[in-house]
Amino acid sequence: MQNVTYILVFLLGTATAYKNVTKEFVVPLDHFGFQRNETFKIRYIESDEYWNRGNGPIFFYTGNEGQIEEFAKHTGFMWEIAREFEAKIVFAEHRYYGKSMPFGDKSLDNEHIGYLTSAQALADYAQLVNFLQGGKSLKPKYPVIAFGGSYGGMLAAYFRMKYPHLVTGAIAASAPVHMFSDMVPCEVFHRIVTSSFNVASKVCRDNIRQSWNVLRTFVANKTNADWLKKQWNLCVAVNDSKGDVQDLVDYLQTMYETLAMVNYPFATDFLLPLPANPVRSVCQYLSQKLTGQKLLEGIGKVLQVYSNYNGKGDCVDYKNTDYGNLNASGWDYQACTEMVMPMCTNGVDDMFEPRPWNYTQFSEDCHKKYKVYPRPDAAWLEYGGDRLQAASNIIFSNGLLDPWAGGGLLSSISDTIKAVVMIDTAHHLDLMPKNPNDPESVKMARQEHKRNIEQWIRNFRLNNA
Amino acid sequence: MQNVTYILVFLLGTATAYKNVTKEFVVPLDHFGFQRNETFKIRYIESDEYWNRGNGPIFFYTGNEGQIEEFAKHTGFMWEIAREFEAKIVFAEHRYYGKSMPFGDKSLDNEHIGYLTSAQALADYAQLVNFLQGGKSLKPKYPVIAFGGSYGGMLAAYFRMKYPHLVTGAIAASAPVHMFSDMVPCEVFHRIVTSSFNVASKVCRDNIRQSWNVLRTFVANKTNADWLKKQWNLCVAVNDSKGDVQDLVDYLQTMYETLAMVNYPFATDFLLPLPANPVRSVCQYLSQKLTGQKLLEGIGKVLQVYSNYNGKGDCVDYKNTDYGNLNASGWDYQACTEMVMPMCTNGVDDMFEPRPWNYTQFSEDCHKKYKVYPRPDAAWLEYGGDRLQAASNIIFSNGLLDPWAGGGLLSSISDTIKAVVMIDTAHHLDLMPKNPNDPESVKMARQEHKRNIEQWIRNFRLNNA
Repeated sequence: MQNVTYILVFLLGTATAYKNVTKEFVVPLDHFGFQRNETFKIRYIESDEYWNRGNGPIFFYTGNEGQIEEFAKHTGFMWEIAREFEAKIVFAEHRYYGKSMPFGDKSLDNEHIGYLTSAQALADYAQLVNFLQGGKSLKPKYPVIAFGGSYGGMLAAYFRMKYPHLVTGAIAASAPVHMFSDMVPCEVFHRIVTSSFNVASKVCRDNIRQSWNVLRTFVANKTNADWLKKQWNLCVAVNDSKGDVQDLVDYLQTMYETLAMVNYPFATDFLLPLPANPVRSVCQYLSQKLTGQKLLEGIGKVLQVYSNYNGKGDCVDYKNTDYGNLNASGWDYQACTEMVMPMCTNGVDDMFEPRPWNYTQFSEDCHKKYKVYPRPDAAWLEYGGDRLQAASNIIFSNGLLDPWAGGGLLSSISDTIKAVVMIDTAHHLDLMPKNPNDPESVKMARQEHKRNIEQWIRNFRLNNA
Repeated sequence: MQNVTYILVFLLGTATAYKNVTKEFVVPLDHFGFQRNETFKIRYIESDEYWNRGNGPIFFYTGNEGQIEEFAKHTGFMWEIAREFEAKIVFAEHRYYGKSMPFGDKSLDNEHIGYLTSAQALADYAQLVNFLQGGKSLKPKYPVIAFGGSYGGMLAAYFRMKYPHLVTGAIAASAPVHMFSDMVPCEVFHRIVTSSFNVASKVCRDNIRQSWNVLRTFVANKTNADWLKKQWNLCVAVNDSKGDVQDLVDYLQTMYETLAMVNYPFATDFLLPLPANPVRSVCQYLSQKLTGQKLLEGIGKVLQVYSNYNGKGDCVDYKNTDYGNLNASGWDYQACTEMVMPMCTNGVDDMFEPRPWNYTQFSEDCHKKYKVYPRPDAAWLEYGGDRLQAASNIIFSNGLLDPWAGGGLLSSISDTIKAVVMIDTAHHLDLMPKNPNDPESVKMARQEHKRNIEQWIRNFRLNNA
């Protein structure tokens, strides 16, 4: 299957079209055992438009939790530097996401989902890279640079760590490699969310902190609940007896988290359609101290920006926990198995209702949903957490406005395991298409990425001459 | 379960008894997926007799294909240097060998054997090392040095490569990390076997080379077959129509291979009881040019040394392919799945009947036995073959009399991936107990191992101070 398509990378409403083809690649269901010997196909997007076939590097995006087109579209950095590096571009789709389903539409059922793990995905990528190199040979032909953002950034780093014979270097953007049990305080993520709102407006932050109580008290009354449904454009009115309030609170909390994550200096539809500087944008509705119904009206306006910025006017489906554009329903399973990232709030260092991290509860909830118990130390054991001294050729970049930076590697470990810190950017902005509104920090980060990639390629050529 | 026992390490018939306990450790059946969530116990032998508990290193033997006591008994080097390093000693048993059986005595059945892979075994060891360190912590307490010989040497090297956050360095003795498809000529192993016999006696080698034809012609006659049964002490007479000749030829070929592998300068019962310098010892019976029945009588004497050195007088069970003391029935499965090591003979560079490497046949035979097809590139993909530039702190030692050296790493790759070559030793002699008959080369190798271990421990302490 080879369909030529075009990835549109947007810059201020103007799209650059990058020619590419979508292909499929056969991988084993289980790379690490022989009990089950089925195979299936993962998808990848490939572009040879700029590739110097004899010599040019392969830029390989280690796909994360979502259909691969979304990452291809929003990782403008790779497209934009491909010409200069004469690089082949590959975006590989993570198993169990998008169309890379081992068991078709039954893949996410409990009896089939068990092969959704990072180690299996990395082994898929290893096979694909080997295939792209033209198979096993004494010397690899092309330097391979891994790229990834967020969980994809973790995968890019782990890909280099675990398969250095196949991967020359990795740009791991906003990769929360420390966001595991006992490595960082569980409050850190929401502390940074809160801090992002605080930077936009202290009053905004305080209004949000007050709103939880107001909301809970208010909707206990049926008339109020009906008013809120209309005011907030909710799909269904809050019925306290059905636990709806908690669902709505969770939805709002996710909203603030997401706004902080994608607090970019330009409008984008990454994850969901939002205006430029969305945190500042929504805080305009909460920039004066509000109380009671007025406060709820203000929150309602935030909610409309978040849920309806494209003006399609759908109601707010707060009982649906599907996450934005990624259609990442497998992620909840990964978070319940190997990617256990403890999160908590205390209402003091953050603007949320206090909610301690309760591993026992978490674990039981996971078991209820998936019939498996988490292995909370699995990722640490497999990938080493912060003990990366023996690795090489990885750049960890983080933006300090990004809540995930709380689990990021923020200082260099060695000459070849380097941290790049952008003080005023959100989640992996450095991988996105360049924009006139980009802060200096992200421009410098991209320059630093390019310098490192150049050096890795140079060393590769020296070692494989 | 903690039984205090003593490992007896022999030196010229005198045993040194090292106190130890045998313990069990619970591991998941599948580290890389959640489809099957059973656990089971692997065994390990532990000795704290010399351990400086606050500070001393952990010497960790990555068990290979066999019950762990055999490796503990024959890896005298670890026991002998433990006092000087104030080290804890651990010998971990490989899953599906010895008593580390996930499904009891049904483990090796086709429906249960699929979780027997090197990656799963390494993940077992990673969990065990983490447990020995006292669990996850910001800094590891004890430097961990991995040791292993043969397949265990591959595991020791891979353990450092894949888990450098848990393993400080590795002594990989006689590890055939290149013995995979397209990496070395398939003839190399038997060329070295032949060369070992040639070193002992050129005539011996030529006699063996002639013997195959003589044997095949001779046993076509039933009376001759009966004579041979008696002469060679075979359990059953060779019945040509039942394919017995091929079984006998295979048995003899394995005999010569094994004699070359364990061609140690002292008597030992490693793999099986044999005299010192067994190749020279058996070649005394073939040191003059022999033909016809005389040649078969000579081979018969070799066979008696090989099969009956301890004088127990059991008949030669040439139709049983169980391999010596290791009881390593799982190895055939590993060789049929991920550890595909192409072997061939051509009768010119070696003293065997020509037998080309026929992957298709091999693959079909594996499928017939185990209902799985091999993945011939799996080990290369996962461990990188000879592309080890990004790794560190591994010593690869090889003896040039050892047929496995043909797949070994024989020249240093970097300051920290070093080759130690012993020109006159067989299979991982450097790990065995010291002996007055040891050649200089092995003494020097052991000194080099100790220097490297010291340096790794020093660096570990600097980095984790």
